[in-house]
Amino acid sequence: MAEQTLQDQVSPEVRARVQDSFDRQGLMRHLGARLTHIAPGRVHITLARQPEVSQQHGYVHAGATSAIADSAGGYAAFTLFPENSTVLTVEYKINLLAPAAGDHIEAVGTVLRSGRTLTVCQLEVFSQEEEKRTLIATGQQTLICLASRPDH
Amino acid sequence: MAEQTLQDQVSPEVRARVQDSFDRQGLMRHLGARLTHIAPGRVHITLARQPEVSQQHGYVHAGATSAIADSAGGYAAFTLFPENSTVLTVEYKINLLAPAAGDHIEAVGTVLRSGRTLTVCQLEVFSQEEEKRTLIATGQQTLICLASRPDH
Amino acid sequence: MAEQTLQDQVSPEVRARVQDSFDRQGLMRHLGARLTHIAPGRVHITLARQPEVSQQHGYVHAGATSAIADSAGGYAAFTLFPENSTVLTVEYKINLLAPAAGDHIEAVGTVLRSGRTLTVCQLEVFSQEEEKRTLIATGQQTLICLASRPDH
Amino acid sequence: MAEQTLQDQVSPEVRARVQDSFDRQGLMRHLGARLTHIAPGRVHITLARQPEVSQQHGYVHAGATSAIADSAGGYAAFTLFPENSTVLTVEYKINLLAPAAGDHIEAVGTVLRSGRTLTVCQLEVFSQEEEKRTLIATGQQTLICLASRPDH
Repeated sequence: MAEQTLQDQVSPEVRARVQDSFDRQGLMRHLGARLTHIAPGRVHITLARQPEVSQQHGYVHAGATSAIADSAGGYAAFTLFPENSTVLTVEYKINLLAPAAGDHIEAVGTVLRSGRTLTVCQLEVFSQEEEKRTLIATGQQTLICLASRPDH
Repeated sequence: MAEQTLQDQVSPEVRARVQDSFDRQGLMRHLGARLTHIAPGRVHITLARQPEVSQQHGYVHAGATSAIADSAGGYAAFTLFPENSTVLTVEYKINLLAPAAGDHIEAVGTVLRSGRTLTVCQLEVFSQEEEKRTLIATGQQTLICLASRPDH
Repeated sequence: MAEQTLQDQVSPEVRARVQDSFDRQGLMRHLGARLTHIAPGRVHITLARQPEVSQQHGYVHAGATSAIADSAGGYAAFTLFPENSTVLTVEYKINLLAPAAGDHIEAVGTVLRSGRTLTVCQLEVFSQEEEKRTLIATGQQTLICLASRPDH
Repeated sequence: MAEQTLQDQVSPEVRARVQDSFDRQGLMRHLGARLTHIAPGRVHITLARQPEVSQQHGYVHAGATSAIADSAGGYAAFTLFPENSTVLTVEYKINLLAPAAGDHIEAVGTVLRSGRTLTVCQLEVFSQEEEKRTLIATGQQTLICLASRPDH
C-alpha cells in the first residue's frame, strides 16, 4: 500500500522540473491553464471556460482544448524522462467528441508506452459542469526525448 | 484568366460570413491571430511570435500552432458550405516538424475533399523569418457540416 | 447480474449481421483473420503470425495489424447501428508500439462514442505468445453510419 | 536537366536494397502488391482490385489500401537512409476519401521531412479506372531510422 502510494508520487525534483517548465510556457499562463496533478506518467491541466478561450459559439475552442491536451501529454512523458532531457511533441491526433460546455475543462495525459527515444501518450479531455463530467476529446500523441541544452 | 480570378475569390457574402465567425472566436483574438487570406477552399491565419503564445523554450507553443491550423482548416471548409450551416472539427492530426522560430507563423488550411457531410482538409503551418519560409507543421483534418441554429 | 450478462451480448440478429458482413470481406479471409468476439460496442479479430502476413523481419506487417484493427473497430461500431445501415471508415490513426512477435495477434475495437452519424472507436492490438500478452499497437478511428443500399 | 534527372534516380545499391526488403515482405507478395516506382524520397506501390483484397462491398479493403500506403511511405523514407539502417513505422493516420473502385490502386509515399532519427511522409492512394485517376485516401506517417542488425 505504502509502495503503491510511493509509486503514485513523483519526487520533489521531478515535480519542480515539471512545474518550472510549465511556468515558462507563456501560452499556458496567457490562457489561464493550471497544472492540477503530477504523477509518474500522468499529468492533469485545467482550464476555465472564459471568453478568451472560446470559439464562435461560446464553447472552449478546439485549439485551446488541444493545447492543454498536448501539454498534459508532454509533461506526463517528461515525468519519466532522465534529468537534463527535454521533451518535444512529434505529432498528435485528437477527436473532438462533444462541445466543451462546462465551467471548466480538464486534460489528462497518460503515458501508454515509454521508450528510450519515443513515448506514446493517451490524451483525454473532460468538461466539468457541477457534478457532471463528460469526455469531450480523446487523442493520441507521440513525443521524443532529447538531451537538453545547457541553457534550458 | 478572368474566370480563374473569379474562381479564386469568394463572394462578399462568404467573406463576411467567415470574417464574422472568426471575429466571434475569443481565442483567436486573445492569441492575436489574424485572418490574412480567404479563397474558396483555402484560408490563411497569421500569428506573431510573442511571449503570450510561447512554450518553455520561447518558440510558438504546439498548442497555438495547432489552434490556428485548426481554425484555418475549419474556415477553408466553411467557404464551401451552404448558407445557414455551421462547421465543427471532427478530428485532426498534426506533425510538428521544426521549432516555430520565426517572427510570425502562418497556417494554411486547404480543402482536399468536400462532401455533403464531411470535408477533409490539409493543414500546413510555416514560420517566416525575414525572407525565409519554413514548413514547421503539417496535418490532416476532418470536419462536419451541420445546419446552423437560428441564433448563430 | 443476468441483466449485465444480457447487456454484454448482442442479439442473434446483430451477430448474424456482423458475421455475414465479415465473411464477405475477401481480405479478412485471405489473411486468415477470424472474428473471435462480438459484444455490443466491442469486437475482437484474431490473426495468426504466418509468412503470408509478415514484413521484412518476419513480424506481422503493420498493414496486416492495421487491417484487422480497422475491421475490429468497424464491426464494433456496426453492432450499435440500426438495421439496414452500413459502416464506412472515415479515418484512423495507429501507433505501432512493439514488433508483432507472438504466435498470433488480436485486435480489439471498442466504441468510445456512438453518435447518429459518426462513431469514434479505440483500437488496440495485442500480441500473444504463450501466456504473455503485449500491447503492440493503439489507435483511434472515426466511422460513419450510412443507410445501406438494398443490395447490401 | 541531366542533374535533375540524376536527382530523380536512386543509385543501383539503394534500388536493390529497397527491392530486396520489399521482396521479403510476405504480406505484399500475398496481396499481389508490386513496387512500381523508386525515386529518392518517393515510392509507388500498385495493387490490383481482386476478391482477395476486398471488403464486404467488393471495393479494396481499407486495410489493404493502408497496407500498401504504409509500405510506400516506409520505402520512400528508406531510400534516404544510410546503409545498414532499417526503417520502422512509428505511426500513421489515413483518411479514406472514396471507395477504391477502379481496376487497381496505387499508393504514393513521399518524404516531407527527413531527419536523422525521424522522417515524416505524405501518403496518397489513387484508384485507376481506365483513364480516370481518383484520390481515394490521404495520410501522414512518422518513421524511425534504426541501425540494422547484422542479419538484416
